[in-house]
Amino acid sequence: MKKIIVHSPGTVANLVCGFDILGLALEEPYDIMELALLDKPKVIIHNRDAFGLPTEAEKNVAGVVLLSVMEKLQDRIGFELTIEKHIKPGSGIGSSAASAAGAAVAANHLLNNIFTTEEVVQFAMNGEKLASGVKHADNIAPCILGGVSLIRSIHPLDIISIPSPDLYVTVVHPQIEVRTADARQILRQQVLLKDAIKQWGNIAGLVAGFMKNDHDLIGRSLEDVIIEPIRSILIPGFDEIKKNCKEAGALGGGISGSGPSVFMLSKDKQTALAVETVMKEVYEKTGISYHTYVTTINKRGVEVV
Amino acid sequence: MKKIIVHSPGTVANLVCGFDILGLALEEPYDIMELALLDKPKVIIHNRDAFGLPTEAEKNVAGVVLLSVMEKLQDRIGFELTIEKHIKPGSGIGSSAASAAGAAVAANHLLNNIFTTEEVVQFAMNGEKLASGVKHADNIAPCILGGVSLIRSIHPLDIISIPSPDLYVTVVHPQIEVRTADARQILRQQVLLKDAIKQWGNIAGLVAGFMKNDHDLIGRSLEDVIIEPIRSILIPGFDEIKKNCKEAGALGGGISGSGPSVFMLSKDKQTALAVETVMKEVYEKTGISYHTYVTTINKRGVEVV
Repeated sequence: MKKIIVHSPGTVANLVCGFDILGLALEEPYDIMELALLDKPKVIIHNRDAFGLPTEAEKNVAGVVLLSVMEKLQDRIGFELTIEKHIKPGSGIGSSAASAAGAAVAANHLLNNIFTTEEVVQFAMNGEKLASGVKHADNIAPCILGGVSLIRSIHPLDIISIPSPDLYVTVVHPQIEVRTADARQILRQQVLLKDAIKQWGNIAGLVAGFMKNDHDLIGRSLEDVIIEPIRSILIPGFDEIKKNCKEAGALGGGISGSGPSVFMLSKDKQTALAVETVMKEVYEKTGISYHTYVTTINKRGVEVV
Repeated sequence: MKKIIVHSPGTVANLVCGFDILGLALEEPYDIMELALLDKPKVIIHNRDAFGLPTEAEKNVAGVVLLSVMEKLQDRIGFELTIEKHIKPGSGIGSSAASAAGAAVAANHLLNNIFTTEEVVQFAMNGEKLASGVKHADNIAPCILGGVSLIRSIHPLDIISIPSPDLYVTVVHPQIEVRTADARQILRQQVLLKDAIKQWGNIAGLVAGFMKNDHDLIGRSLEDVIIEPIRSILIPGFDEIKKNCKEAGALGGGISGSGPSVFMLSKDKQTALAVETVMKEVYEKTGISYHTYVTTINKRGVEVV
């Protein structure tokens, strides 16, 4: 029985001013997925973690991805998948995308890479649809491609890899629940033109900063005047964390995905560790349980090990 | 008497999806300005063209720039300026910016470059304020720096040069009047969040396309879903020009500044000339007088000759 193991990384979507269009992959945490090819059209799923996710293929994020691959191949094959998740569901760092993208890349690999990267992204987006009701690619794309991904358009799909310096990422995941649907619900349908102009100045600056390796420009551009002022009220301690992390030397950061995790970018490890200390201090005061990561941008994406 | 001559180029601001933040400099047309240093605190202006612009310093775009330089230097000097404008006022390709930027750069040069580029931009913005009531830099910055300029922020001023491929620019200037104030008036104060997201996806794609020398990506990203649908109604034949120019091979384009000029980017001269033919065909039918330019991106900005 042909089988492989992949590591599928966490991701930060909604990269500050890049709401809905910009995401990056993390070195840590990552899920470990073992996938085997079957000669019967069925999907068998085993969980090797304590998250208790559904094992029926139709209700499992990775399962629906594999079903869509099977459908494309007219059910001539099946899959057996064992998932060991390390990215906690609901954390805001791309847990469902890791399951979906990992399954799609692993399946394509077992099938001798018959599908293009765009097709693999499309398969994986079926998993995001199950998880959040929306086929979005801002976690899927960086998870598969690694690095920083721009999703210029969803229809038609247009994904652009943005070169970036080797930045450090500090993430704090407060153990509270922010439902993606709620986080979307509270957004306003209309925004002020003057705010939108500020935002597109910042996104242009951020892309230029990444591509020029200009840390200062990245820092100046990491400002979100539209989404963050609304969503940050769902995250206890957000303003204090952001202020203190910048004082500790972080280039900037914001809400990861639709929260509750908060991330900060730093140019070196020492700063990233100082930022972690600041995050811990804030959450120790609130009494909310939390988990932190100090990691870097993963430039490889899902990888076969 | 110390004097110099500068060439100050036309510019395209509001670069499609880069409304208010992105502009580029043109090889042609350019204004010719001769500036001399006086030892008395006065500004003398001569016009060597047929546009009949005011020669009182306080009412002249270049004049107010020179007055602001004099003020900074506590009136220990004065200037005598001769302007030969080739960029028609009101054309939408940065006529006032060329006067303002040319005067600021020339004055700084005569003063042995005692001011920083940012200070020179600030002086020049006084001219834009006289011309349009607003201190904006999206023509001034590319006029002074050359190439493509991103104005990430006005307060504080943050200008970033965006490297770009050697693109050709075709411009058609229909001889109608579009008042900048009117063009601003008809914009909506609020925009849909989903349109704003599309726009910032496109601006991110455009900056990445310029920096990656990716003509296709530049073409796909040259789309404005917010400003152009409203302002283009002020420009006769706009939709037909845009459609036909793209069919003729243009990467894309749109309204230059607040119009009435329309510009198109092409990757080679042959295409840029075919685009010019298409523009002429459309305006021949309308009976509106027009002028066309086939030129390239000027990467030097205002230069001393």
